[in-house]
Amino acid sequence: MTEARLRPLEASDRAAVERIIAAVEVFSLEEIEIALELVDEWLESGAESGYLTYVIEETAGKGTVRGFVCFGPTPLTEGTWDLYWVAVDPAAQGHGYGQRLLAFAEAEVRRRGGRLLLIETASHEAYAATVRFYERAGYELVSRIPNFYRVGDDKLTFAKSITGESL
Amino acid sequence: MTEARLRPLEASDRAAVERIIAAVEVFSLEEIEIALELVDEWLESGAESGYLTYVIEETAGKGTVRGFVCFGPTPLTEGTWDLYWVAVDPAAQGHGYGQRLLAFAEAEVRRRGGRLLLIETASHEAYAATVRFYERAGYELVSRIPNFYRVGDDKLTFAKSITGESL
Repeated sequence: MTEARLRPLEASDRAAVERIIAAVEVFSLEEIEIALELVDEWLESGAESGYLTYVIEETAGKGTVRGFVCFGPTPLTEGTWDLYWVAVDPAAQGHGYGQRLLAFAEAEVRRRGGRLLLIETASHEAYAATVRFYERAGYELVSRIPNFYRVGDDKLTFAKSITGESL
Repeated sequence: MTEARLRPLEASDRAAVERIIAAVEVFSLEEIEIALELVDEWLESGAESGYLTYVIEETAGKGTVRGFVCFGPTPLTEGTWDLYWVAVDPAAQGHGYGQRLLAFAEAEVRRRGGRLLLIETASHEAYAATVRFYERAGYELVSRIPNFYRVGDDKLTFAKSITGESL
C-alpha cells in the first residue's frame, strides 16, 4: 500500500497542481486559470487570502503530489464555507485520496468554527462521477439553478452540516 | 414630476453611493465595503472589470444621485449575468427609480448577448420588501440554500429570462 500524507501546498507544488487539473480533463482553460489564481493567493497570503490549500503526497521516493483541495470561508456568512476545488490525479485514483482530502477539509472547517460546507458543481454528465463522490461523502443536493453554466447545464449546490446537526 | 436620467457611474459619485447604501440600513459594514470595491473596480477598469455600474440622477439643479445598479457577466458561464447591487435612496423612493435601474440592467444584459439574470438575496425579514420588488419585476425564486448567511437566514436566488424564453 502506498503511503500518503496531507500537507499545506507550497510554491514548488504549483506545477503538480496544474498537471493534475489538466489530467482530470473536465475543466476548461478558464477554470484552470481560476484554480491557479486561488493557489497563488494562498501562496502569497496563506489563510488570510480566504483560500486554504492542501496537497496529498505519496511519501515514497522523492514524493509525488497526487491531489489537492482548496476551501475557504464564504464571504458575508457566519460559519459557512465553500469547497472550491478537490482534484486527484487520474493515475492515482482508487486509493481514497479524494475522500481523504475532503475529510481533511471538513475537519479543518470544524476546527475553525464552521458549521456548513458547500460545494458547487455542474449537472453536465462529465461531472456525474463527481456528484456520486459528494453523495457518498454525505453531501445533499440543496439547490439547482437551471441553465446556469449554459442552456442544459445547471448549477448544483451540495451541502453538508459539519457540526452533526441536520441541514 | 422630478426628471431623472441614467448614466455610467463616475468617480465623483462614489460618496453618493456610500451615502445611499448606508441610508438603506439593511447592509452590514462588510457588505458596504464589498459594494465600494465593485464600484472602485468599475472606476478603474470600466466594463473590463466585470462590473457595470450606473447611477440614476435627478436632473434638477446641480443633479442628485438617487440610486445605482451594479451587474456583470457571471464567470464560467455562457450568457448568465449577476445583478450584484441595486439600491435607491430611501428619501427618493416611490418614484420607480429601482424599477428603472433594474429595467436598464436587463436591457443592457440583453444587448450584450446575455440570456439569464440572477439576483441573490437573504431570506431575513429585513429583505422582505426587496423580495417583493424582484417578484413584481418578474423574477422567479429558483434556489434557496438553508442557513446560508447564518442559522435561520437562507440565501435566495431569483432569476429572470432576458430573452423571453421560459427559464
